[in-house]
Amino acid sequence: MEQTQAPISIRWNEAGEVVIVDQTKLPLQTVYEKITTPQQMYEAIQTMKIRGAGALAIGAAYGVYLGIAKKEYPSGEKLAEDFDRLCRWMSGCRPTAVSLSKTMQELSSFANSFRQEKAENLKAALLEKCHALWRYSIEKAERIGELALPFLKDGSRVLTHCNCGSYASVKWGSLAPLYLAHERGMNLQVYADETRPLLQGSRLTAHELSLAGIDVTVICDDMAAFLMQQGKIDCVMLGCDRIAANGDVVNKIGTYCVALAAQAHQIPFYVIGADADIDFSVATGAEIPIEERADCEVTDGFGRKTAPVGVKVYNPAFDITPHHLVTAIITESGVYRPSYRENLQRIREK
Amino acid sequence: MEQTQAPISIRWNEAGEVVIVDQTKLPLQTVYEKITTPQQMYEAIQTMKIRGAGALAIGAAYGVYLGIAKKEYPSGEKLAEDFDRLCRWMSGCRPTAVSLSKTMQELSSFANSFRQEKAENLKAALLEKCHALWRYSIEKAERIGELALPFLKDGSRVLTHCNCGSYASVKWGSLAPLYLAHERGMNLQVYADETRPLLQGSRLTAHELSLAGIDVTVICDDMAAFLMQQGKIDCVMLGCDRIAANGDVVNKIGTYCVALAAQAHQIPFYVIGADADIDFSVATGAEIPIEERADCEVTDGFGRKTAPVGVKVYNPAFDITPHHLVTAIITESGVYRPSYRENLQRIREK
Repeated sequence: MEQTQAPISIRWNEAGEVVIVDQTKLPLQTVYEKITTPQQMYEAIQTMKIRGAGALAIGAAYGVYLGIAKKEYPSGEKLAEDFDRLCRWMSGCRPTAVSLSKTMQELSSFANSFRQEKAENLKAALLEKCHALWRYSIEKAERIGELALPFLKDGSRVLTHCNCGSYASVKWGSLAPLYLAHERGMNLQVYADETRPLLQGSRLTAHELSLAGIDVTVICDDMAAFLMQQGKIDCVMLGCDRIAANGDVVNKIGTYCVALAAQAHQIPFYVIGADADIDFSVATGAEIPIEERADCEVTDGFGRKTAPVGVKVYNPAFDITPHHLVTAIITESGVYRPSYRENLQRIREK
Repeated sequence: MEQTQAPISIRWNEAGEVVIVDQTKLPLQTVYEKITTPQQMYEAIQTMKIRGAGALAIGAAYGVYLGIAKKEYPSGEKLAEDFDRLCRWMSGCRPTAVSLSKTMQELSSFANSFRQEKAENLKAALLEKCHALWRYSIEKAERIGELALPFLKDGSRVLTHCNCGSYASVKWGSLAPLYLAHERGMNLQVYADETRPLLQGSRLTAHELSLAGIDVTVICDDMAAFLMQQGKIDCVMLGCDRIAANGDVVNKIGTYCVALAAQAHQIPFYVIGADADIDFSVATGAEIPIEERADCEVTDGFGRKTAPVGVKVYNPAFDITPHHLVTAIITESGVYRPSYRENLQRIREK
């Protein structure tokens, strides 16, 4: 271990470059790559060197900034035009990533509203805006960590699924409660489901927690229930992709399976999210379409074929955990408990 | 598909050779290998070309026969001595395989009890004994198939876990009900859990069911509960390694997880076994020690490393499904329902 702290998956350096961890090389190598052009960032996002809603939005923000940083503009207006074109282009990089297109729209509107400024001033404001997004990501994680900390104690044995941590955001992400507990001197024992098919649990979660010096053990997804049966798990803590108005949780496939096992063993099941994840436009999880992904993720996952050629495959990327299996939802604005339909409204009313 | 019937994983041919399917080459190639010496069989078992309790016991039986088949013996006594030595040696090939050492003891005792016979007669009797074991394996599977058939109907959607079929026995094995239903013209839809870490579900079960023309779909283990939630599964049917006197089932890791999900969705959970799997010496599953296997099965399973170097791993090979989650246990002697402690005694009393 060359370091014992949580990795920062993306950061701006003094030379005016974006430094990212190339996630395609994890867990075997921690390679930091310098990004100096929007084209490089586009490619880094498209090839999954950066992934995770939070990380790719901030990467893209710095990416479009790089596109205007060193050019001379006769006016803020010209800069804003150029910047808008860059933002639209970058949005197409991962069309399904809502966080990406939202951030691009936000930045483009921001530039547009300051188009009367001098070009140099607008540039400086845009860089500051990127830094603010970056800082807010970290602050939000720290806030979530504080709010969820009371659910952990020294010696807690925590099961998690998929990756929602530093590698899906900037630093800590939805693994914040574990990082904070560790910083406060609690000894945790974390079990990371490997999370088939793409193995984000073993490749990313186990890697980033290890770097921070947190005790982590990798298991296959089908072992989690047996661990619970043996009394080896005190709570489940994991992230989410989207939450319906009634508290139904959409997260990486396999989450529902963990939730059922937790319920059977009366183990608390905590979902870590952000206010922005609550989608009040959908009443229940059943309304949310589940993306099905390519067969090869299941049959050709890691360098060799593991199923017969041409066999049928079903590969849903997410599943829906009904709200009644969720002990609490923790976001940057608070701890929410049932009835979610009622209590999550507090977020909407803000 | 070059054939549309269940594979026979092991058979004696007219040239006096044993023909096996090399399971290490599955699912990509179906390679039949001819075994002509006990050394070759020993190696085939040790390198997992043959695996599964039933298959390796019968392979070993033919293997030791091959050791005496072409030698000249002055007497049955000399043959029996030589044969006993071979049986002891072959038992050491996979020390934890109870079926192997039991079969070797049985054959050695058989030879010993006919040591007064002429060598040629004893040879013939031993070959016939091997054939009888082989035939009984198939007949037992057919009998189990008939008994479990009423739990299936045209259109049934069946989830299974791991491999307990032809590749774990001679033909059909504990997948017999599915094969028989298919032969009787029922259209089944089978979902095969890939079964991490060793992927017997995607590598073997999906392969052998496909060969027989049965509609099979591979899923990752963490997708099973979501399938059930969507109403896509009518029943679970899977094998077992051992059953305690109270009906607790020891089977491949992940079975318990499937059982919990089945219970949550009120889906019947059928265990297919053999009378010999009921271990009356253990009152409950809790008394059965669970083998833990090498970390590399989890971290290096797919031909490339999928977890950080040196990360901790927990890799239990089996788990225990409590009897209250089991709808019925079907063996060659009958269909057993709760209370298992009472009803399984019928097997003991035979």
